[in-house]
Amino acid sequence: MTSAEADQNCTNGCENGGPCNDTDLVADSFKASELIIHRSSSSGEKPDPDNLVFGTVFTDHMLTIEWSKENGWEKPVIKPFQNFSLHPASAVFHYAVELFEGLKAYRGEDGEVRLFRPKLNMERMLRSSKRMCLPEFDKKELLQCILKLVEVDKEWVPYSTSASLYIRPTFIGTEKSLGVKKSSSALLYVILSPVGAYFAKGSFKPISLWAEPKYVRAWKGGTGDCKTGGNYGTSLFAQYEAMDVGCQQVLWLYGEDQKLTEVGTMNIFIYWKNENGEEELITPPLDGIILPGVVRQSILDLSRKWGEYKVSERYITMANLVKALKENRVKEMFGSGTACVVSPIGDILYKNENLPIPTMENGPKIATCILNTLSDIQYGRVESDWTVTVS
Amino acid sequence: MTSAEADQNCTNGCENGGPCNDTDLVADSFKASELIIHRSSSSGEKPDPDNLVFGTVFTDHMLTIEWSKENGWEKPVIKPFQNFSLHPASAVFHYAVELFEGLKAYRGEDGEVRLFRPKLNMERMLRSSKRMCLPEFDKKELLQCILKLVEVDKEWVPYSTSASLYIRPTFIGTEKSLGVKKSSSALLYVILSPVGAYFAKGSFKPISLWAEPKYVRAWKGGTGDCKTGGNYGTSLFAQYEAMDVGCQQVLWLYGEDQKLTEVGTMNIFIYWKNENGEEELITPPLDGIILPGVVRQSILDLSRKWGEYKVSERYITMANLVKALKENRVKEMFGSGTACVVSPIGDILYKNENLPIPTMENGPKIATCILNTLSDIQYGRVESDWTVTVS
Repeated sequence: MTSAEADQNCTNGCENGGPCNDTDLVADSFKASELIIHRSSSSGEKPDPDNLVFGTVFTDHMLTIEWSKENGWEKPVIKPFQNFSLHPASAVFHYAVELFEGLKAYRGEDGEVRLFRPKLNMERMLRSSKRMCLPEFDKKELLQCILKLVEVDKEWVPYSTSASLYIRPTFIGTEKSLGVKKSSSALLYVILSPVGAYFAKGSFKPISLWAEPKYVRAWKGGTGDCKTGGNYGTSLFAQYEAMDVGCQQVLWLYGEDQKLTEVGTMNIFIYWKNENGEEELITPPLDGIILPGVVRQSILDLSRKWGEYKVSERYITMANLVKALKENRVKEMFGSGTACVVSPIGDILYKNENLPIPTMENGPKIATCILNTLSDIQYGRVESDWTVTVS
Repeated sequence: MTSAEADQNCTNGCENGGPCNDTDLVADSFKASELIIHRSSSSGEKPDPDNLVFGTVFTDHMLTIEWSKENGWEKPVIKPFQNFSLHPASAVFHYAVELFEGLKAYRGEDGEVRLFRPKLNMERMLRSSKRMCLPEFDKKELLQCILKLVEVDKEWVPYSTSASLYIRPTFIGTEKSLGVKKSSSALLYVILSPVGAYFAKGSFKPISLWAEPKYVRAWKGGTGDCKTGGNYGTSLFAQYEAMDVGCQQVLWLYGEDQKLTEVGTMNIFIYWKNENGEEELITPPLDGIILPGVVRQSILDLSRKWGEYKVSERYITMANLVKALKENRVKEMFGSGTACVVSPIGDILYKNENLPIPTMENGPKIATCILNTLSDIQYGRVESDWTVTVS
């Protein structure tokens, strides 16, 4: 699918099966047709994709779009990557008026560069913007601007079918006052960072989790279903305590019955034989505290299309999990996210006891199948209307 | 009390009656004795304190202190107020690695400039820093640096016993990468803003609140007891919905029993005749979701010293409040914070019904007494070891 087709598709009905949100479109938005491009006079050295630390190397250009209450949206600008000059009272520094997205561009074996379901990211970004009282914009226009930015820095998309170019749209409040109020000025920007393979060649490495109810990632009535900065900074303390007890990530629990919600910065999936003896893939429902991940949605969509096992969005508690482990009913557990696609879970430390999870012993059949299917789509080995091609 | 005495006092035992936290002191901190001062060549025009919008005007200078994992703390610098130049991947933009404080300098009738219980702010700031995985520092050194900054911009402290100079210490993560991890670089800075009287001369104006459980400010296992940016940006949406239904602030509730927690960005107090017929001042306990406000603590300390009514840190639910209102037992309700000292509450909109609160009809006796006592201390009309004088 070309970007023009993507555009057309969005007008006709949304790719994710939900109602088309075109009624969300706002008259006051920046326009991709008005993009101003200032090209960098030189280009940075492209890194070896095998030796990249996530999010540390950036491309030659960035996209910036300024908004003010007074003048609305300015024309979008692609310009050389550079620092921002910001007033010390800017709302983003004091009240975390900020949100972001994360998606990737993949260079296929056919040489084409593709984005994976970017409209889902644009929809989520618009939702996050509303939640943070930042101005609305036209999702299609933003996607067109991002496609243009990736086109300008296309040589930065690694020539590799395990590496990719990470795309980071960000939106910050730049109100220059200390009042706790809607920002009267804001900056939407997009930066690009080439990233390496998440797993070393060909091998999944399972992670260990710390299941501890003392820290809570998100809560009903909060912003856990939006990609706001505040959800992430507050998670660091628990992450480092997890590492202190020898685990790699936090298994976030919720409520007195200790429902499983997310893993680190990923959604969580369990593949098991359920209480009724059915093979079932479960992930927690989107009840307001779960980030609606693009990979999460894709795993559900694929699994439902395959029709080979039951697929459920429902709660599972630590008690449910411990019982199922005792009865040898758990087959696989894994996290899902843009960085890794899927990340197998090998152990859970819970109440000072290690619970081994037999994910690797079981293949992992489902996780591998999902990883392969999504990778085939992302790297263009299989045609799909989930991808948008960069010109 | 001079700043030298304040320093000495902190060594001997903390002013707030708790155990002295000197064991918290870290060897690796910046030192006020190493302060570098670059004075501005010109001075901005001082505003009329009667026409100030909160947090929009800033003084000539700012304090900045940089930290990096590699080199530790740099020397603190006072320099002309200026924009920051920051990398677009800085942690503060993406993951809200940020926290702040708020306190004031008051020009007394005797011409002296005083800070009010600033050590409580320094302690809270250090606690917030730990929670956000930002580096520790010596609270006493930071206070000395702030005192010096206020001294340099002393002419900006309004010549008024209703206005003041608002002091905003801020601490942001400046890590230049997109990994969700501890920042390996950070910037602590302090800016100053002259602010006007909260209430027009001589008259309290009561506020109306929207009590609606659909939005939750903070939750157990989160950061509600720290002054992190994320707590504030996420509150905006509810604040604007409150204004849409004709209220001025949100009355934040918590839990299925709808406990009262905070008001807007203030702590909350109720003065009533309790179920046992006792006159009682209540505020919710510091259970992890309540910000330990300096004014909150001061109201408790004063009230306990006065000994004229029962003083309780305990829960109160909407059901308790509604019952007490029906039985005409509620005398006063007010918010407390650095901006207003106390802010009387006049109405609460709850389940589409307006609950009039007879705060103003009852004087408000307690709120007025607290406001007068604290103002007398802040403006030097009454001597107190709660103030620290600027040289």
